Amino acid sequence: MKTIGILTSGGDAPGMNAAVRAVVRSAFVKGMKVFGIRRGYQGLIKDDMFEMELRSVSDIIQCGGTMLYTARSVEFNSPEGVAKAVKICKKRGIEGIVVIGGDGSFRGARDLSASGIPCVGIPATIDNDLACTDYTIGFDTAMNTATQMVDLLRVTSESHDRCSVVEVMGRRAGYLALQTGISVGATAILVPEVEYNVDKDVISRIKKSMKTNKRHFIVIVAEGIGMVNDLSDYIYQKTGIECRPTILGHVQRGGVPTVTDRVMASRMGCHAVGLLAKGIGNRVVVLDHSQIKDIDIFEALAMTKEFDKKLYQVARDISV
Amino acid sequence: MKTIGILTSGGDAPGMNAAVRAVVRSAFVKGMKVFGIRRGYQGLIKDDMFEMELRSVSDIIQCGGTMLYTARSVEFNSPEGVAKAVKICKKRGIEGIVVIGGDGSFRGARDLSASGIPCVGIPATIDNDLACTDYTIGFDTAMNTATQMVDLLRVTSESHDRCSVVEVMGRRAGYLALQTGISVGATAILVPEVEYNVDKDVISRIKKSMKTNKRHFIVIVAEGIGMVNDLSDYIYQKTGIECRPTILGHVQRGGVPTVTDRVMASRMGCHAVGLLAKGIGNRVVVLDHSQIKDIDIFEALAMTKEFDKKLYQVARDISV
Amino acid sequence: MKTIGILTSGGDAPGMNAAVRAVVRSAFVKGMKVFGIRRGYQGLIKDDMFEMELRSVSDIIQCGGTMLYTARSVEFNSPEGVAKAVKICKKRGIEGIVVIGGDGSFRGARDLSASGIPCVGIPATIDNDLACTDYTIGFDTAMNTATQMVDLLRVTSESHDRCSVVEVMGRRAGYLALQTGISVGATAILVPEVEYNVDKDVISRIKKSMKTNKRHFIVIVAEGIGMVNDLSDYIYQKTGIECRPTILGHVQRGGVPTVTDRVMASRMGCHAVGLLAKGIGNRVVVLDHSQIKDIDIFEALAMTKEFDKKLYQVARDISV
Amino acid sequence: MKTIGILTSGGDAPGMNAAVRAVVRSAFVKGMKVFGIRRGYQGLIKDDMFEMELRSVSDIIQCGGTMLYTARSVEFNSPEGVAKAVKICKKRGIEGIVVIGGDGSFRGARDLSASGIPCVGIPATIDNDLACTDYTIGFDTAMNTATQMVDLLRVTSESHDRCSVVEVMGRRAGYLALQTGISVGATAILVPEVEYNVDKDVISRIKKSMKTNKRHFIVIVAEGIGMVNDLSDYIYQKTGIECRPTILGHVQRGGVPTVTDRVMASRMGCHAVGLLAKGIGNRVVVLDHSQIKDIDIFEALAMTKEFDKKLYQVARDISV
Repeated sequence: MKTIGILTSGGDAPGMNAAVRAVVRSAFVKGMKVFGIRRGYQGLIKDDMFEMELRSVSDIIQCGGTMLYTARSVEFNSPEGVAKAVKICKKRGIEGIVVIGGDGSFRGARDLSASGIPCVGIPATIDNDLACTDYTIGFDTAMNTATQMVDLLRVTSESHDRCSVVEVMGRRAGYLALQTGISVGATAILVPEVEYNVDKDVISRIKKSMKTNKRHFIVIVAEGIGMVNDLSDYIYQKTGIECRPTILGHVQRGGVPTVTDRVMASRMGCHAVGLLAKGIGNRVVVLDHSQIKDIDIFEALAMTKEFDKKLYQVARDISV
Repeated sequence: MKTIGILTSGGDAPGMNAAVRAVVRSAFVKGMKVFGIRRGYQGLIKDDMFEMELRSVSDIIQCGGTMLYTARSVEFNSPEGVAKAVKICKKRGIEGIVVIGGDGSFRGARDLSASGIPCVGIPATIDNDLACTDYTIGFDTAMNTATQMVDLLRVTSESHDRCSVVEVMGRRAGYLALQTGISVGATAILVPEVEYNVDKDVISRIKKSMKTNKRHFIVIVAEGIGMVNDLSDYIYQKTGIECRPTILGHVQRGGVPTVTDRVMASRMGCHAVGLLAKGIGNRVVVLDHSQIKDIDIFEALAMTKEFDKKLYQVARDISV
Repeated sequence: MKTIGILTSGGDAPGMNAAVRAVVRSAFVKGMKVFGIRRGYQGLIKDDMFEMELRSVSDIIQCGGTMLYTARSVEFNSPEGVAKAVKICKKRGIEGIVVIGGDGSFRGARDLSASGIPCVGIPATIDNDLACTDYTIGFDTAMNTATQMVDLLRVTSESHDRCSVVEVMGRRAGYLALQTGISVGATAILVPEVEYNVDKDVISRIKKSMKTNKRHFIVIVAEGIGMVNDLSDYIYQKTGIECRPTILGHVQRGGVPTVTDRVMASRMGCHAVGLLAKGIGNRVVVLDHSQIKDIDIFEALAMTKEFDKKLYQVARDISV
Repeated sequence: MKTIGILTSGGDAPGMNAAVRAVVRSAFVKGMKVFGIRRGYQGLIKDDMFEMELRSVSDIIQCGGTMLYTARSVEFNSPEGVAKAVKICKKRGIEGIVVIGGDGSFRGARDLSASGIPCVGIPATIDNDLACTDYTIGFDTAMNTATQMVDLLRVTSESHDRCSVVEVMGRRAGYLALQTGISVGATAILVPEVEYNVDKDVISRIKKSMKTNKRHFIVIVAEGIGMVNDLSDYIYQKTGIECRPTILGHVQRGGVPTVTDRVMASRMGCHAVGLLAKGIGNRVVVLDHSQIKDIDIFEALAMTKEFDKKLYQVARDISV
């Protein structure tokens, strides 16, 4: 391949810029030309792109968000949309595309690949909810941002002998909530993957800790569970501890990328270009037991992820 | 005076610990004994206190919250409560008290002073809503924490061409919202002190900026205004810009104290002890045009604060 | 005036970008055209400038450093250099210039003003060493960055029962060192403005604290004193406490601007444009007891700054 | 086992407290008693320890450093010292010890195990230089702290068109330097594990980048190489780019533990107690391809670590 495109799609994740940079720079090492496509598949269909230079990606490795912007495209989710995208690629001479995003983005990459434009996916979502890979870019930054914010809540909770009930992002997945919950020593962690009973898994645990003179508490609730306002009221009613609900919200998306996200994005970006350079498409770059590998997109999308129950048990044992 | 008490009361504010430390240390320089009273006036009534040593306040200057804890006391707000407090003071030999908190706390200090226990107030609240002083401990940290969080939101808003509508604390006051709004370059800032019209002051401003190719926006709303969810819907409806509401919440209370808060608390703490050492009570320590002074509590509570309209205009002029 | 220039000069300071933004935006409100001059007076002489637009200064308020770059110019420090600068201004139609920097930069502004190009200075240096103003942009950020770093050192010092001897920036001035020293609870603070005796002001203070069971220490040394390696050795030799010297260095320049720096820069930037709009030059914008005012540059450069000895005493009293 | 001891030894590392907490809490789950031994093997020999309670480890998971303090002990490094330690253990009823530290600490654990007190090591050092494990507690925090500081330097380097030459910790290992170097987009990274030629690997790379209009540079040098002052001078001499050397120093030790360090410490702490509970000693807990396992201490100490040359090449390819 001589010319490739690159786009970011779906929710933004810290580290996407580091991945864009790695793709551009390693494509240049291999003598390729790179088009930066703005606002994901929508930009592809609208031919909203620019030829990137070596210095286009200078001083972005430390920036959250995505310099290529991102958007959702309804139009692309149709055979006509895909056909339009293929046409634009032909016109521009784009022979392959690196798609940085989550599973929705990979479905687009699969369709484009099937239509003759080989695509390689790089997993990037703060939710870490992709079954095909141990890691998705943005997860480490988001969990650290969430944890830093709950560390702030701890201070005021402690001063007032209160309980903070905090909703952490993650869509239908509880990975972000679990890591954050362990990191802040949460007395209870509620995630969609583990059945729970509020009386047993929250109220009893708080009451038990109260007996050992603990007077302030943190309860972490995954976005997929929600209901932090009701839960706060219920905890107060059952324990007498004043509660304050907090929904951390989009702040969690915005962190300065951590080292893990910058390095992982760099490694995955280089790997993706290596595949396209060999003409290989329809692959997702993955982390598999600390090794960078790649797998078929169809297979990747069909996999189901197992929740780390053992880690969840660690949290329960030591946060008392 | 040979023996004084110290308590923190009302909402916690970063820098309270630095004030406690300064009070203890400067009392020691003057040969005084200090009782640390836990959980504000409630602890005073319950005789929940301990004699502090030089090292009791080591390694707390950098900690948010309050090592003396804080609480609201209904009981103290009655002549019987105050009488009880006086009795405890006599029993313990406490001749004066330093009260760190906001206007509610100062009303208690006024009542105690009137009942024979001279009190000196140190203003500490993240809202900076006390008329008697240019500065209240905790304000600088809170406004920096709020700004850092909106900086995070900016990143994701920009990637998605969105508008972030953010509620900032401050109870009935807009100082925190104004400082944060200027610092993040908010297109609109709504505060209780300034009348507003959403169409003119938010929608028109956004539309005008859109014409100059601005695609992402930040709107800051003071807690005293609220309604960020409705406002988000309205902005989307009128401008077509996707909006995300965020309520920053108690995270704003928890920051590591900034230098301004640590230094201001140190200066005010020393000044408060200087007053008690001379037997002077019923005073509030204040910052008046960068000078540390003190004024009568009755007077302090009667003052009304003027909003800095000129600064508000600066914000409007340059955030376009 | 219809057209003005803006430049940043001398050492960079966090908040310079916020000042540039305020100048550009308030000039636009007044219908002026603005040239952004790159790399200070050197860029002016080389005619290295560009016409700024409303959006040129978008998304920079939160960035440290200066988007206009900065440099020192030997050539400008001569009558020929100034004449060249005046010629370029005439050619470009530049009728006045806003100069953001420290005293060296203001000397240039004075010379240019005297040669017919009215200049207004905005004080920006992390050292806060200008006599004419209570505040210089960048100081708040730098003192918070320095404090955060010494907070990190405290953690490891405490774990090892060590003494950290830390050099803080400030050139010949001790303001940064004093604020940092108070904020970290330094057992000793050495600044050029206060005579000291190492045995009395460092060793004795450490030994006295050791008797009260303090086992880890922080000593802050202003850049103007230096010698942290020798001082470390000496402390170890005299007290038996293991010491670690650290020179914080240029890291202190790079912080994300704090709210104080962003707001102060916004206010000063607007004030500077207000002056030029009225055709007034040869002035420095200053903070005088929390009010923004302006004074004559000649006078400003002739003033001498007094060190806050009272604050220094506060530090000595409470850090024991 | 009914009673165990726990100590931290060698250089402090962020996350040590999280490990202590996990050990205490999971020992309690298993009905064990835990002695907290102060200042490592030195405290063991001096019988400086205290019985820990459930709440002894509250609110420490977010703190860097070690609540048990750390120190080096010359006396313990002798058969007599070990014998003394064994005697103290017998007296106290300590049947096993968890040792948190680096390879020096593990040699002590090996000797104690051989003398009849089964020990389990938990790897904790910011250098990540232990061959037996993919991860040592503290590494993630340290590399993020180092990166944040170089991010600050980048800002000022860029404003002045300078080159920052930065020494990063790591003793004889280059892991911290490599991760930091990739994360900051360093033009050159010098580590002890890879042979280098300054002209080819630093000067030529900078000159090549200058041709593509890059004007500011970062060079990362591992502690094991050092010489940043000389290197700075040499770069200036050869390229004309102004250089500023910085030695980050002990600040790198002090960070608030990241999520990875808190979670890894929690997992390793639980695993260590699980081993002692079964009477198993002379083991080191390790991370092996994202799995927590354990290996023989003798074997662990005999292993040699391989440097990730492929990752080093990634750095060279994309930082241009």
